[in-house]
Amino acid sequence: MTHALRLARRGLGNSWPNPAVGCVLIREGRVVGRGWTQPGGRPHAEPVALAQAGPLARGATAYVTLEPCAHHGRTPPCAEALVRAGIARVVTAQTDPDQRVAGRGHAILRAAGIEVTEGVGEAEARQLQAGFLMRELHGRPFLTLKLATSFDGRIATAGGESKWITGQAARRHSHGLRLIHDAIMVGGGTARADRPSLNVRGMGAPRQPVRVILSNGPIPELPPEGPEFGPLWQMSGGIVDVMKELGARGITRVFCEGGGNLAASLLRAGLVDQLVGYTAGLIIGGDGRPAIAALELQRLAEGGRFQLVETCRVGGDLFHRWLRIDA
Amino acid sequence: MTHALRLARRGLGNSWPNPAVGCVLIREGRVVGRGWTQPGGRPHAEPVALAQAGPLARGATAYVTLEPCAHHGRTPPCAEALVRAGIARVVTAQTDPDQRVAGRGHAILRAAGIEVTEGVGEAEARQLQAGFLMRELHGRPFLTLKLATSFDGRIATAGGESKWITGQAARRHSHGLRLIHDAIMVGGGTARADRPSLNVRGMGAPRQPVRVILSNGPIPELPPEGPEFGPLWQMSGGIVDVMKELGARGITRVFCEGGGNLAASLLRAGLVDQLVGYTAGLIIGGDGRPAIAALELQRLAEGGRFQLVETCRVGGDLFHRWLRIDA
Repeated sequence: MTHALRLARRGLGNSWPNPAVGCVLIREGRVVGRGWTQPGGRPHAEPVALAQAGPLARGATAYVTLEPCAHHGRTPPCAEALVRAGIARVVTAQTDPDQRVAGRGHAILRAAGIEVTEGVGEAEARQLQAGFLMRELHGRPFLTLKLATSFDGRIATAGGESKWITGQAARRHSHGLRLIHDAIMVGGGTARADRPSLNVRGMGAPRQPVRVILSNGPIPELPPEGPEFGPLWQMSGGIVDVMKELGARGITRVFCEGGGNLAASLLRAGLVDQLVGYTAGLIIGGDGRPAIAALELQRLAEGGRFQLVETCRVGGDLFHRWLRIDA
Repeated sequence: MTHALRLARRGLGNSWPNPAVGCVLIREGRVVGRGWTQPGGRPHAEPVALAQAGPLARGATAYVTLEPCAHHGRTPPCAEALVRAGIARVVTAQTDPDQRVAGRGHAILRAAGIEVTEGVGEAEARQLQAGFLMRELHGRPFLTLKLATSFDGRIATAGGESKWITGQAARRHSHGLRLIHDAIMVGGGTARADRPSLNVRGMGAPRQPVRVILSNGPIPELPPEGPEFGPLWQMSGGIVDVMKELGARGITRVFCEGGGNLAASLLRAGLVDQLVGYTAGLIIGGDGRPAIAALELQRLAEGGRFQLVETCRVGGDLFHRWLRIDA
């Protein structure tokens, strides 16, 4: 399952609107097929692995990070494909919350006499599928808020100088995070001030993320969609509605890169699921520009708490990642 | 030498005005004596180790983290004590920059026919002796600035609520840092608002740190000096002069715990040698109280750069430590 989860990760950011799933087929202790959800969401992981295994799939065990689908969509259900291929045993990490599947995939397998083991590696699979689960259960994408700041939480001097607070290694590292999100979102002010490229560079991205600019006003001319740039969506209105709309359009993971007003709106609405910080070894002082606009908290506890899940050095900067602690 | 450096560390924060030195005596592969600078600065490390070894010191190798002293102060010179004890070989980590020693300790040993090896573990010894070296070379103590903030660099809500941003584990961890500093410094505003205890609790401190309050105005009544509280020094005037005065009084390591105006003064004067951050997993927003007052930087580069040397999780918070990169 660890191997299957690692394969699933390759689909993050490019398999939307479908979940990023991984599948490994083992027969007599040897890997005979590996698959993951392909860019754009299909083929699914299972048919890729089955095609690779060919006749060797017969009698094999399939490790799949999500319950195989049971509904006839644009492709026939994966549960039936596993049955037809003669798979002897299926191990899954979690049940698909999609109402069209929700246990029916497992049922199809069991009805065909296949031994099914569920919930193996479930905690890790849930982290990996956080975007898919958020969209299925709450109708909106999982949201990561990134802040690259000085030691004292500033993004620019009072005069506006901001290049560069964090270093090149941190910028490259953050492209790795863009890569595993479906969309990159910024506010109109940031779009106008920085004209950010909002793409993934130098990482062989199979599909560029959607560029989402949240602005009621005009936005600057940005490069058209193409191999180097994803679709450009200008959106406006309340942040809750925008997130719902992104979910409706199939987006499962959003990476927000500012600015301070958009970040504050997201925080006030309780829409931030993950915080990512790049902290530089310099101090700008209280007259510098804050990373987050006013939140008008009456009490400390209102703001929500996040749990540290990862920290390391990235070049000269400190990287830290936190997940929301649900109350 | 690693063992000797570890022993030396025990004197940090309690050996001032003397350096925290460690000494290990090895004879025929066995440790026959261990010593470190005792609280208050004497006895020095070498006589403690020699007393422990007794006649076993004859023919032994002494590992000492700093060149043994050569001057007659309140105690006879350690270099002569090593000679008298019949030590065969001395290994040191660094030369003492004190003008009364500065190579003369090594010379006394060599003149007596002792084999001397210098500079073993020098980089680590220099870190350990940063306070002593700063005072010897620049006449002021080494200064650590601590900030315990929200993810976005705030120390309180707009309404002033600040208890607790960081958790109990972080507060306890910071007592471990107080322990290895000679003095704890805060500004008058912080002293008046928080009436901080500025002592080390629950760590068996052999000597409580000096409490330094930098204030031109009146300060609140604080507990008198005693077993639980170090001397209380109210100081005023420019920060450069205050630091010189602290150096003149023998202080080698100062731990500054705020507030924002004092932190800003120290930064503007280029007096911050080490930054220590405790970052909590919550966001207060741009209307919260900043950890550092205005610095009025014209350019990013003016503020100085710090290098990340340590990061880890402490309870629910992120701990990170940075050292100034000298231009």
